[in-house]
Amino acid sequence: MRSEIAEQPAALRATLDALLPRIDEVKALGEQTRQLLFIARGTSDNAAVYGRYLVEAHAGRLATLAAPSIATTYRRRLDLNGVLAVALSQSGRTEEIVETLSWAKDCGAKTVAITNGGPASPLAEAADLALCTLAGEEKAVPATKTYTTQLAALAVLGLGLGADVDAADLSRVPDAVEKLIAEPGALDDIVEGLADKPGVVVSGRGMAFSTALELALKLKEACYLHAMGLSYADLLHGPIAVVDEDTPAILVAAGDGPTLPGTISLAERVTGAGAAAYGVGGGDGLAAVSTAALNGPDLPEWVAPLGLIVPGQLLTEALARRLGIDPDAPRGLNKVTQTD
Amino acid sequence: MRSEIAEQPAALRATLDALLPRIDEVKALGEQTRQLLFIARGTSDNAAVYGRYLVEAHAGRLATLAAPSIATTYRRRLDLNGVLAVALSQSGRTEEIVETLSWAKDCGAKTVAITNGGPASPLAEAADLALCTLAGEEKAVPATKTYTTQLAALAVLGLGLGADVDAADLSRVPDAVEKLIAEPGALDDIVEGLADKPGVVVSGRGMAFSTALELALKLKEACYLHAMGLSYADLLHGPIAVVDEDTPAILVAAGDGPTLPGTISLAERVTGAGAAAYGVGGGDGLAAVSTAALNGPDLPEWVAPLGLIVPGQLLTEALARRLGIDPDAPRGLNKVTQTD
Repeated sequence: MRSEIAEQPAALRATLDALLPRIDEVKALGEQTRQLLFIARGTSDNAAVYGRYLVEAHAGRLATLAAPSIATTYRRRLDLNGVLAVALSQSGRTEEIVETLSWAKDCGAKTVAITNGGPASPLAEAADLALCTLAGEEKAVPATKTYTTQLAALAVLGLGLGADVDAADLSRVPDAVEKLIAEPGALDDIVEGLADKPGVVVSGRGMAFSTALELALKLKEACYLHAMGLSYADLLHGPIAVVDEDTPAILVAAGDGPTLPGTISLAERVTGAGAAAYGVGGGDGLAAVSTAALNGPDLPEWVAPLGLIVPGQLLTEALARRLGIDPDAPRGLNKVTQTD
Repeated sequence: MRSEIAEQPAALRATLDALLPRIDEVKALGEQTRQLLFIARGTSDNAAVYGRYLVEAHAGRLATLAAPSIATTYRRRLDLNGVLAVALSQSGRTEEIVETLSWAKDCGAKTVAITNGGPASPLAEAADLALCTLAGEEKAVPATKTYTTQLAALAVLGLGLGADVDAADLSRVPDAVEKLIAEPGALDDIVEGLADKPGVVVSGRGMAFSTALELALKLKEACYLHAMGLSYADLLHGPIAVVDEDTPAILVAAGDGPTLPGTISLAERVTGAGAAAYGVGGGDGLAAVSTAALNGPDLPEWVAPLGLIVPGQLLTEALARRLGIDPDAPRGLNKVTQTD
């Protein structure tokens, strides 16, 4: 896992070099569609959450997540004319995802695959358009470079759909990730702070919500921590009750954007309740009110999630080793999960 | 909380009596719409998950959940022509939800409010059609009767949208709930099994996924338990790693339907890993492979969630008292949550 985290700047460069020239293909396919439907599970589902907010906040189209069981368990047809269905799978071989994308096509949707499994993978074969990430083989069970390159593919998708952002920001991502790997911030302090805790709440909002979900999943997978990923608003609707001196909160935010003030307020509320609040990103404002903080990328909000997860990956890897767990091969998991 | 749990049969009868005659109003509004967009937070969001599966699996329309921050934080307009937006709020006074429903209307959607706040509440006032539940005043912070009556309103919504189910099943719900309150099953055994555990995984799929999410939220709110609500498939994509002798699983299923076999298999996998698996519903099949089980309602799958949460509410209330917590007023929470 550690070496694959370090491979991300190169994986991102390769993926962006391959996919940025294909924006016009996305544009052509997307022109006939009024909304997006993402199809994914696990880490890929967290990437889809980024895609969803990116498309809604910047490309002005409704974008939501599919319930695969409607296709695979209930076997119900829906009218998906005018829908662009985007399926994400690291391997491109998760049968549930391939089957759901094929179902979407049968229901009238246009289809895109985002996968690291290559153009010959079943998912890529099933789609009208395949955006293949070039992360190289990923051996550790917890996904790292296949996740951030999925986000890069989603950023390209957003540009193809006309997002009102500066495409040049994407070219800054690999260097920003490299810098975070070299200078993650107060990693050791946070590892010690979490080492004897049974659980943690991980929260972020809007564009950074995907990062909160993905960091919570990493901590569950590799550290067996009861980590709950929640949006800022959903946290306040009930789960805030679990935050106490035994349950710290990790709060994630880009260095700018409209969700930052709320994240800073939440950190103050958490520390006010006697719990530790660990910041990830959010610039000096979030760091100042946090118990300890990890650095975030020097990137605008729309593209910040591509870097924001990286200090979280380093935290997960270091905490797993501190707990005596091999982060590359956690119990109960295989690299390709098959569900029906 | 205990007395409000017991009030549910009467609350459901009153709500169904009021709303079933209004199916034609739903039908008239829904005729011009091709898909649904639910707007909710917290417990209401869990109810929306039921509405989503009900509409997709039985009324043949795409139905997904909105991201309110697009409206309230990013302030971005989307094209929502042809969309039926359905907002749920117990109080009808959560500003974020009222604002998001008004935004949906401005974006071209038809709008429905489901609330216990009455026709004069801001949410009902903002909607084209208000389906008001008649749960009476709810005093305990953890919602019970306002949740199950929201589900009843969603069932009426589904019927208005042409769901291929037998409307007469709904009239069996109050009696089925009454029976569950009288005979919940192995409540004491499960309370003791959870009393010294830091966390629990709660899982269900399809129609029962909403129940899993809602039970996990109840256990977080009122027992401060690190309870993770996950679909069966998402659980296998990573979080299954946290299940061990210190982290039991609660598995929820209707007594019939296509998701039951997978839930039974999951219970076997959990006990095979040395963890306790507590069944909720799922008939004799799930009970037979569970460490201990709570009874489910004798209702068909489409309407089972209206009863399936009830033994979970009783479990939450009993576990909170066992842990020395007042379930009516958990720390850090108010009855009406305001988020922005």
